Amino acid sequence: MRIALGLEYDGSRFCGWQSQPSACAVQDAVERALSGIAGHSVGVVTAGRTDAGVHAVSQVVHFDTSSERPETAWVRGVNALLPDSVGVLWARPVADEFHARFSAQERRYRYVLLNHPVRPALLAGCVGWYHAPLDVELMQEAGAMLLGVHDFSAFRAAECQAKTPVKDMRSIGIARKQDFILFDFRASAFLHHMVRNLVGSLIYIGKGKHPPDWMRELLDGRNRINAAPTFGPHGLYLTGIGYDAKWGLPENAARSPGPWLGQ
Amino acid sequence: MRIALGLEYDGSRFCGWQSQPSACAVQDAVERALSGIAGHSVGVVTAGRTDAGVHAVSQVVHFDTSSERPETAWVRGVNALLPDSVGVLWARPVADEFHARFSAQERRYRYVLLNHPVRPALLAGCVGWYHAPLDVELMQEAGAMLLGVHDFSAFRAAECQAKTPVKDMRSIGIARKQDFILFDFRASAFLHHMVRNLVGSLIYIGKGKHPPDWMRELLDGRNRINAAPTFGPHGLYLTGIGYDAKWGLPENAARSPGPWLGQ
Repeated sequence: MRIALGLEYDGSRFCGWQSQPSACAVQDAVERALSGIAGHSVGVVTAGRTDAGVHAVSQVVHFDTSSERPETAWVRGVNALLPDSVGVLWARPVADEFHARFSAQERRYRYVLLNHPVRPALLAGCVGWYHAPLDVELMQEAGAMLLGVHDFSAFRAAECQAKTPVKDMRSIGIARKQDFILFDFRASAFLHHMVRNLVGSLIYIGKGKHPPDWMRELLDGRNRINAAPTFGPHGLYLTGIGYDAKWGLPENAARSPGPWLGQ
Repeated sequence: MRIALGLEYDGSRFCGWQSQPSACAVQDAVERALSGIAGHSVGVVTAGRTDAGVHAVSQVVHFDTSSERPETAWVRGVNALLPDSVGVLWARPVADEFHARFSAQERRYRYVLLNHPVRPALLAGCVGWYHAPLDVELMQEAGAMLLGVHDFSAFRAAECQAKTPVKDMRSIGIARKQDFILFDFRASAFLHHMVRNLVGSLIYIGKGKHPPDWMRELLDGRNRINAAPTFGPHGLYLTGIGYDAKWGLPENAARSPGPWLGQ
């Protein structure tokens, strides 16, 4: 039997999604807790591996088990075995053809940037930070150039394992909310470090180092070396995975992530 | 020369405000960093000591120094010496008569409660949690009974050192925002554990264990043993200290704490 789970986690407490020999990863914690409830060793497949420090409001995984358990066991039972900073939001039995990664039709990320002269403290580990004023309109103009199907090689980490650098960017939202700037990205898929590299280059444009057209030059150049450095992981949230309605999964997260991460 | 500072901190990373032999307190970190910039040993006086796990969006302290430094040194210089999870928001020279605690005319606290069947994970350490449905209108009705000058002995911790249990509760706001309930309190001062004890009793009323009038009975009884247990510290934020405008301090925090803590 195949089961899909919705997860949330505070990435600042883990060394990333992917299992590590030192067992410091989100995957290690989730597989250990699921195995405890299943009574056998469980391996999970994720929709998207997040880097160290990157958070998830709505991550999706699947696993196979021969153990019959009520849905509450896969939620509350597993949560009782997980560390505080990772939790199961929902569980659903799914068809054997469902695959958390290959069935995913799109991914959504939000980057939360504190744009203020003084560094974050209360929200250290939860937001990125840039100290000088940023022009949101210039960044919006540049962001619009990213929409559609492009070769995103300019924003791809060297160690990226994706088969192709061509992705479909379906929407971008950049908005100021008090002292924060929220960057929302929705795409078919993302390359390794792609959001953090895009945010770094958008900030270069927002502070006036380059005009908005620089974004088109970067895309056309397809060379990572021309773009800005990778921005920090702390402000990055995986906010949702899109699947066909036929799989019967809950829409996005099963709950609101808190007003400052919602709308 | 006397200087006032505005601070924010993530209380989950400290053992409370008040200095401890093991130096795990916010006060220890702040005094160490200030001493580094001042070039002499600095002691700070706070407007309100927060418990272990309790956060501050806007804490105020004062200290005395013989060292002349620009205001940026007391902000950015000190921040460079502080741990990530505590920061100085602003610094102002003040009259020698200013006293962070005795000049304070009121304190403001917010309690952020996740009201959802599944425990917090992304926001573990940042919010309180109650799993079953709560009736906000019943809690509002009970909250209104707390307004005005009362003897709050029913909500006072045994170890409280306040001279009197009589405080003036100036406003209370209780509102649902998505899956969260925000409790805002504004009073002349608060007894030890008072907000957490009030939230515990409001939750008893919200879940229907007692009618709203129970709150008046608790107040009149002035006996801690009748009220609900102290609720957890993780959802509690010191959101502001009120001073007379004559002291020339910035209004509240020098920046917005993030949409989910602001309005």
